[in-house]
Amino acid sequence: MDGTNDVTSTFLAAGQIPGLINLGGGLPAPELFPAEDIARIAARVIRDHPQDCLGYSAINGLPDLRDALAARYSTGGVSLGRDNVLVTTSGMQALDLVGKVLLDPGDVVAGQHPTYLGAIDAWRPRSPRFRNMVLEPGFDAVAALEGAKFAYTVPNFSNPTGRLVPLAEREAILAAAAETGTWLVEDDPYGRLSYDGPVPPSLLQLSAAGRGGAYDGPVIHLGSMSKEISPGLRIGWMIAPAEMIARLNLAKQGSDMCTSGITQRIALAALEEGLIERIRPRALALYRERRAALLSALETHLSEWFTWERPEGGMFVWVRAKDAGFSTDALLTNGLDKGVCISPSRVFDAEGADGSAMRLNFTLNAPDKLEEGVARLARAVRAMV
Amino acid sequence: MDGTNDVTSTFLAAGQIPGLINLGGGLPAPELFPAEDIARIAARVIRDHPQDCLGYSAINGLPDLRDALAARYSTGGVSLGRDNVLVTTSGMQALDLVGKVLLDPGDVVAGQHPTYLGAIDAWRPRSPRFRNMVLEPGFDAVAALEGAKFAYTVPNFSNPTGRLVPLAEREAILAAAAETGTWLVEDDPYGRLSYDGPVPPSLLQLSAAGRGGAYDGPVIHLGSMSKEISPGLRIGWMIAPAEMIARLNLAKQGSDMCTSGITQRIALAALEEGLIERIRPRALALYRERRAALLSALETHLSEWFTWERPEGGMFVWVRAKDAGFSTDALLTNGLDKGVCISPSRVFDAEGADGSAMRLNFTLNAPDKLEEGVARLARAVRAMV
Repeated sequence: MDGTNDVTSTFLAAGQIPGLINLGGGLPAPELFPAEDIARIAARVIRDHPQDCLGYSAINGLPDLRDALAARYSTGGVSLGRDNVLVTTSGMQALDLVGKVLLDPGDVVAGQHPTYLGAIDAWRPRSPRFRNMVLEPGFDAVAALEGAKFAYTVPNFSNPTGRLVPLAEREAILAAAAETGTWLVEDDPYGRLSYDGPVPPSLLQLSAAGRGGAYDGPVIHLGSMSKEISPGLRIGWMIAPAEMIARLNLAKQGSDMCTSGITQRIALAALEEGLIERIRPRALALYRERRAALLSALETHLSEWFTWERPEGGMFVWVRAKDAGFSTDALLTNGLDKGVCISPSRVFDAEGADGSAMRLNFTLNAPDKLEEGVARLARAVRAMV
Repeated sequence: MDGTNDVTSTFLAAGQIPGLINLGGGLPAPELFPAEDIARIAARVIRDHPQDCLGYSAINGLPDLRDALAARYSTGGVSLGRDNVLVTTSGMQALDLVGKVLLDPGDVVAGQHPTYLGAIDAWRPRSPRFRNMVLEPGFDAVAALEGAKFAYTVPNFSNPTGRLVPLAEREAILAAAAETGTWLVEDDPYGRLSYDGPVPPSLLQLSAAGRGGAYDGPVIHLGSMSKEISPGLRIGWMIAPAEMIARLNLAKQGSDMCTSGITQRIALAALEEGLIERIRPRALALYRERRAALLSALETHLSEWFTWERPEGGMFVWVRAKDAGFSTDALLTNGLDKGVCISPSRVFDAEGADGSAMRLNFTLNAPDKLEEGVARLARAVRAMV
């Protein structure tokens, strides 16, 4: 588990610095947490469903929650039942379970590059070989997937780049999966944080369209409550063919036996009473404003040395130095001295090679903090170039 | 993960049988769940600590909870700080983390025999070699531990046998650990369910006594809220030297990132306001009564064919057929036909060899159900012998 540990330690130490502006994490805005609603819901579900909340849950999750999630995803030609759903203790556990079921040492993972740090963390102890898969127009999807145990993608507003994978590339991946027999792990924590319009159909939807019957596609789709309501629930889920869910279920049994019934029942109530949809407009408005603030601050302070693309959703802007020799590892260290924290690109590359880009988060901080954070970053850069 | 899967499937199918009496599981009495208290506490902590409850927690747990757990275990010569504590998402996760940090394929685990099924489940995918360690007066502890990566014990009212390991055997294990350099994983979910008097000092206490300073002993001690308040919280913890906690922390990061702040805050409040101590006398009284009911039913219905020992605590009676050729696997199947479910001994043996004993639970069912369940079991046995 080396390679990320040093950066994690740096982040932890950064948390102790008073006045530090954290652009490095992936945290939602805490002012969006519907604390009063969740407090009310928690008390109600524990009183109304004491056995579900306080006893052992089924390993794969409460049947009512699995039904609700199956219904949520049964759109656009997809028809799912509770046997296609496994409730997980966070999206991170879903990644761990994928590794437990699919990865033996030396297996190849084709990971959308750059790759979510947490996925690398979850799988590296299983000693796979990571193969970088760069999704771009006209990429060779069959070559990317050939011989891989599974491909890992975050099609909607990828962590770390914020990129929205267009429909043509999604279709190319699916066609390649059909040709190579490779599983597709589709991680979608950010799909509902879309600021400029609807997203293309998911790999799950595309793979089910027109096939009818029980879902038997190649997609293992991962979702989470962390960005929709609160990371503190630690509620995620996996949607997959029933046979794959059964294998994942065995792995979950040996991981934590079952997910808390309290947090499952809160998540279910939030779905049933529409809490997620109620708070979503406020989240979208707040995050749109913050995205604009970060992009404007980048334009003002960093455009001399860096380029970036405007993300259409999610939580991050991926910022690349014009000078390929620039080190964002060094910028992490130097930025901390100036009171700002970033995520350097090296941690999103399983080979640790890409050293000149960084991930900046715009959801956690208010516009004035984003402006001040980027100004501090510019002072750190100026001292380096 | 084979070897237990078939029995788990049988248990799951058993859950569908109306009127079935479940003596096979390890469930607490649901009427003991303090639902009203937990509903009240949940609403309060979410309102009072929205950031702790709804945001990401530190990987190793909320500092306040780690402090409270360190204080709880700082007795009898043990001096612990928060760096000696990792909060886990259930005791099962603690077992998984032990495997992730300590086990490579082929490593030897010296497991107190018979062994908790969940530990076997958690570790088998890592392909260790299990070595059965039979704790009994005068056993050769050095031979048992020699060459093992760690020893796994449940000294207080072992699952499945209910046996309380006496002080002399605890001291022998510790002496052997010092001689062999082996880690000792001490799993203690049942220590506070002691019906006949105090238990001997834990391996953790014994290993710290008289040494002073930061804890550097060989013990990794596991605790859980599941039997003290509610399994639905999914809150467990590990107590160990700080360096080991740091390694476990990295493994937890890649497992579920952090445990729910909601359930952590509920557990902390339950500790702080004395909820656990308030409900404990009722639990002890109820379980004493049920232990008596099960033992009496065994005497009435099964003493012709089986022997057992009276457990001083915990949740189980270990019942062995006088005829070593008797199959409790067959009794599981035949019992289900009569409307009663047991746990056969084979699943508590990593080699699957021990086939003539069974684990019976006395905490879940009321006395009349226990009596009726054992009577049904006797009818199944009579048809088999």
